[in-house]
This record gives sequence, C-alpha cells and structure tokens, in this order.
Amino acid sequence: MTDDDPRPPRALAAQDAHLEETPQDGAYVYDGALLHVRRDIVRLPNANSAVREYIVHPGAVLIVPVLPDGALVVERQYRYPMNRAFVEFPAGKLDAGESPVATAQRELREETGYTAQRWTRLGVVHPVISYSTEQIELYVAHDLTHVGRTLDDGEFLDVATMTLDAMLTLLDEGGITDAKTVAALLLYARTLTR
Amino acid sequence: MTDDDPRPPRALAAQDAHLEETPQDGAYVYDGALLHVRRDIVRLPNANSAVREYIVHPGAVLIVPVLPDGALVVERQYRYPMNRAFVEFPAGKLDAGESPVATAQRELREETGYTAQRWTRLGVVHPVISYSTEQIELYVAHDLTHVGRTLDDGEFLDVATMTLDAMLTLLDEGGITDAKTVAALLLYARTLTR
Repeated sequence: MTDDDPRPPRALAAQDAHLEETPQDGAYVYDGALLHVRRDIVRLPNANSAVREYIVHPGAVLIVPVLPDGALVVERQYRYPMNRAFVEFPAGKLDAGESPVATAQRELREETGYTAQRWTRLGVVHPVISYSTEQIELYVAHDLTHVGRTLDDGEFLDVATMTLDAMLTLLDEGGITDAKTVAALLLYARTLTR
Repeated sequence: MTDDDPRPPRALAAQDAHLEETPQDGAYVYDGALLHVRRDIVRLPNANSAVREYIVHPGAVLIVPVLPDGALVVERQYRYPMNRAFVEFPAGKLDAGESPVATAQRELREETGYTAQRWTRLGVVHPVISYSTEQIELYVAHDLTHVGRTLDDGEFLDVATMTLDAMLTLLDEGGITDAKTVAALLLYARTLTR
C-alpha cells in the first residue's frame, strides 16, 4: 500500500521509533466535494492491528496581514460546522501545484483586497494531528496596499482591522478561539517582544 | 432536517446575520470507527446552494499539567496521519455523557499517571472550524501527584517533563507545531505575565 500512501514522508526521530505505527492496508472510504477520507489498517508497536481514519488534505496557509500603522487585517466569517461566525486571519487551501507563499499572496488579495510588499515566515502548525494530514504554513504580510478584493463565487466574509492590543484583549475575553488564529496571533506577538 | 442537526446551537452575533448559511438537507455519508462525516446542502446568503462536508465530533479537552516546581508534563506520541511523533500536552475526547473537566481528570491520569489538586480553566479552541465540529476545552492542572498511568489498550506514548522556557525555546525552533499545544502553551505563558 505504500505506493499510494498519501501521508507526508516518514520523519520520525530515532528516539520515537518504538512508538511508530506501520501501514498494512488502506483505501479511500469517502471521496467528497471537500473531504477525502482514508481508512488504513496499521500495525501497532505491540504487533496488534488497529484502524486509523483520517482526512487527506492538500495543506493550507494563514496570513497575519500588518498595515503600515501596525494594525492587523482580520475577517469575520460564518463557519457552518460551528453554526456561528469567527474572527480569523485570512487563510486558504493550496491549489494543485501551488507553492504555499503563492497561495498566501493569492488568498490575501482575494479575501481582503490587500497586496503586501514583504512576506516573512512565522512558522507552521498542524491543526488536527489525530485525524488529518493538514499542515498550515504561517506568514506575515508587511507593508500592505489596498487594491480591491475578488471573492470566490459563493464566498461571503467581512474584512476589518484591529490593533494587536485589541486582538489580544478579544482573545483574553474568549472572542478568538479559531486555533490557527490563536496560535498565529500569539506567535506574531512573540516576534515583537523578542 | 433540523431535528437531527448535529451542530452546536446557533450562536450568531447580530452583526454576522448577513453571512449565515442555512441547512436545507443533510445526511451522514461516512460512519467510521473514529470519523463520522456529514454532508449538508446549505442555502448561502445570496440564495444559491452549496455543499458542506464536516466531521461530527464529540468534543475534547487538553491539559497543561504543572508540577510543583513549575515544570510542565508533555507527551511524545506518534501520529499516524502525519507519519511522525509530536510533542503534545495530554488531550482526549469526551466519552458519551462525560463533562469536560471529568475527561481532563481521566485523560491526565490515564496518559501521564498524574492527578492534580487544583484545576483552572484556560480557555477553548476550535481546531478546524472549516470541517469539524470539534471544540477543545483547555485546562491547567496544578499541584500534581504521581500515581501511575493506565494507558488504553493499543495506546503508546512517552511522558516527559520540560520547563516552560525549554518548551518556548523548542517552539521557537519549530519543534512544537501541534496547533492545540501551541495555543495552550502560549495562552498559559500569557497567564503568568499578566
């Protein structure tokens, strides 16, 4: 089954070899419009077998967009699975063959209408290591210029700006809970104080 | 279809009403050992229809376990979808009918062998608002006592302790990328400096 193993290449530290699970067999069990679910049978460290089900994901990016005065550009977007709207940094999935930084530039412009003079890398997060292969590359977009947005058909979201302090206050009040946005906000704040 | 709508109750701020998507029809399309996938047809704000696919999740907890000297208890666990091991705080899914704090107490003891004298709430994160109903309640467990762990059958993980500074250094080096752990670590560090 390794021929079509959709997971990232093995990257296991030597100290963790005794924890590894090895694929024995596997197949896609749901191939939807958005979600692609795979079910594998694995061999556990004790030689027993177990089932692993997970989403096969193309990867994504998140952008922390910084205006010349230091304020940040955020979105308010209704998220159907949670039945409410969230304050989020712009983000989006990689198109086939697209590099993460190209995705970041495209999504920032499409969703918020801004382009950036300078891009820096903030890190990477894995949102659901127990049931998805998703990896989110985090970028900071500096020196923004507004050129106008071009939302995808059927995409609805509001764009707003907030100071870093206002975002941190909203976080402390429980008003920012999207994990990728929480992580990126605090990682970005950390870069300013080191 | 609202009779069996598995999403959280509607919690939409008045300012976001123009972004809302309304369910028209829906059904489970994959009912697995771990993952339960649902596909709904929704009415968009412009009255067009769209498909939404998402994981229906029972909710989870994460624990930041603090030893009497301030060091933190972490796990190293192989995560099959990512094909590598991660440094993580202890976490786990709610059993049916279980309260989040009871889950936190159970998971901390089962996975790390510690019980805590005092529990405080650190916040909540939503790891995948685009394709899962999962909500993770974050707790801090204080004044730990080691009583011995009782891992689930087929569960393999290593337990270690790290100072907060060592964890922040590892984070800065790119060695901590699990989004729930990144968010909880930085939220916890923030509580110590305010």
